[in-house]
Amino acid sequence: MSSALPYKKGLHSIDPYIPGKRLEEVVKELGLSKVIKLASNENPLGCSPRVPEAAVAVLQAPSRYPDGGNSELKAELSRLTGLGPQQFVIGAGSFELIAFVAETFIGPGDEAIMPTPSFSWYGTVTKLQEGRIIQVPLTTHNVDLDAIKREITAKTKVIWLCNPNNPTGTIFTDEQLRRFLEDIPSSIVVAMDEAYCDFVTGGQGYPDTLNWIGRYPNLIVLRTFSKIYGLASLRIGYAAASEETADYMNRCRQIFNVNAVAQASALAGLKDAGFRERVYENNRLGKEYFYKTFGELGLDYIPTEASFIMVHTGQDSDTLYQQLLKEGVIIRPGSAYGMREWLRISIGTMEENRIFIEALRKVLKAPEAAGSSKN
Amino acid sequence: MSSALPYKKGLHSIDPYIPGKRLEEVVKELGLSKVIKLASNENPLGCSPRVPEAAVAVLQAPSRYPDGGNSELKAELSRLTGLGPQQFVIGAGSFELIAFVAETFIGPGDEAIMPTPSFSWYGTVTKLQEGRIIQVPLTTHNVDLDAIKREITAKTKVIWLCNPNNPTGTIFTDEQLRRFLEDIPSSIVVAMDEAYCDFVTGGQGYPDTLNWIGRYPNLIVLRTFSKIYGLASLRIGYAAASEETADYMNRCRQIFNVNAVAQASALAGLKDAGFRERVYENNRLGKEYFYKTFGELGLDYIPTEASFIMVHTGQDSDTLYQQLLKEGVIIRPGSAYGMREWLRISIGTMEENRIFIEALRKVLKAPEAAGSSKN
Repeated sequence: MSSALPYKKGLHSIDPYIPGKRLEEVVKELGLSKVIKLASNENPLGCSPRVPEAAVAVLQAPSRYPDGGNSELKAELSRLTGLGPQQFVIGAGSFELIAFVAETFIGPGDEAIMPTPSFSWYGTVTKLQEGRIIQVPLTTHNVDLDAIKREITAKTKVIWLCNPNNPTGTIFTDEQLRRFLEDIPSSIVVAMDEAYCDFVTGGQGYPDTLNWIGRYPNLIVLRTFSKIYGLASLRIGYAAASEETADYMNRCRQIFNVNAVAQASALAGLKDAGFRERVYENNRLGKEYFYKTFGELGLDYIPTEASFIMVHTGQDSDTLYQQLLKEGVIIRPGSAYGMREWLRISIGTMEENRIFIEALRKVLKAPEAAGSSKN
Repeated sequence: MSSALPYKKGLHSIDPYIPGKRLEEVVKELGLSKVIKLASNENPLGCSPRVPEAAVAVLQAPSRYPDGGNSELKAELSRLTGLGPQQFVIGAGSFELIAFVAETFIGPGDEAIMPTPSFSWYGTVTKLQEGRIIQVPLTTHNVDLDAIKREITAKTKVIWLCNPNNPTGTIFTDEQLRRFLEDIPSSIVVAMDEAYCDFVTGGQGYPDTLNWIGRYPNLIVLRTFSKIYGLASLRIGYAAASEETADYMNRCRQIFNVNAVAQASALAGLKDAGFRERVYENNRLGKEYFYKTFGELGLDYIPTEASFIMVHTGQDSDTLYQQLLKEGVIIRPGSAYGMREWLRISIGTMEENRIFIEALRKVLKAPEAAGSSKN
């Protein structure tokens, strides 16, 4: 009966969202007293202690609409980056900002290119606009900019890049990116998702893209407050672009897309560099711990510049996921990314990292896991 | 240079958003010690006292992603309405829900119909999808369902209705709506924006549309927590529709579109019927006060079923807006709705209502206002 309704074509190829397991659900289902979640690259240290204070202040006027112009936040971003306040678009996390890019540039029949595996949402937003998504495999876990270049056609509107790449944690350098931007037509938008930029341990020439927007007006840089700022619950991030592009992206935006608590919290977070230092350092130590213990366990891993790490177990990741769940540890199976024998582990507190390693040791030794191994 | 970028056609006709004056800005600019804002139909009583408690509890885990499935909130809505949890779509306020309807049904060249004046966002989202918006004037301040029916063509995908209508506060009845739904093709979506439904004082047959979805699968009901619940700062609302339509609308949704504080606050708000009673009663008394004082002042007004009222001053509304601003009262000039001699006043606390009336008396007497009158 209702299937007579004129649903748009692009929606048919979108899988309805099936929510993942939440921490509380797992605790309840398994009857465990303690469960740790290293599955969603959430900040293990929470957020700056300045945030709750700022959030509570906002709740003094809960019934007032937020500042639709995000003026204070843009002013602070402008001060910190040297870009103009009109060069920013504030969104409800990277998800919304990525959708804005697609809504601004991709129409029916247009093409967009993305590395794979990478953040799958690039493909979803492309398809929502009835565009075609071209997936270019990584080369030895790295985004292959040359291969991406070869897929450019007259229909290419957007190239999605993720640096560091999720889920592999690898980066491409300023040299590589500059060559890429010089080579491609300047009418193709390059959307740089830098959600994990603050975890890069450096020394390898990670590009300072915010300073490149003047030179490359087709560059859009996407940042989030969900990762090093620890505000995933509040949904806020920003895009930096040319004034013109920011203006067009802002036209896709609902006036009050970002709530007042999120705006105040992001502002408070920006002002606490000390908290970010602590998060960075915890992450750096965590990854060294993982490098060392994976080495001891004889497990291959991908050196990471992000807040997660992929480890090769040689076993079916869905099976391991279930086994680790029973041990009270939630991780992300590599199967989600077409990497069946890998696990993606969010770097947690050192205590969480150790609990994970103990659980991993246990399940890798278990006969069930050994039996399902194809190696 | 950057204008070589392939911005989508629909965006050219969208006016970039210019944020309105915020309370703090006006206070600062005018150097006033007290300013009252009766411009945005914000809840003058704030929100339920249960909300801040719920919000602060969420901030215990700021770095965790929200429940993308909004499961607790949907369960409670299901319990309260008798609809299934799969019949709901949770959005960041009505703005986002209205955008979802457009994204689900309106494509390039399609038509959508709306009454005018009404909530202008219906037109914006239609144009964002490269659709054409057909505007049907009100008849004596009422949504004219018969006139809307006459504008239906083979290209009509969505009819936007607002009940009570913003900015006039008028309603159409269950009888009128039922006849309309029976008459139009069942393949045309009727999006019913009921942001102000909780303020209807009754006795006139306001339609109980949530119970009609089973019979009319082309009906989508949009509700918000911004008005009677007083959560405008937090951005949350819901759509109720057939399971199929809710599924398609959910495909447009970013997984984490609504933040965790908003979800917890809405849930807390739903459980406090006593607060909503107080808001309803304050609004009812406020409108009686306005009816009486406008009568005394000899000013025409539109009897309202919402939390705002339109009053006819016979003078230029932009001039009056500026004069009232200097008196420390922010209202919405009717010029925004093509009603140049009208003001839209949000019903405030009784104290705010009285301050507004005093300010209005003063400016209507002032020679400047009298001079600009054309009556």
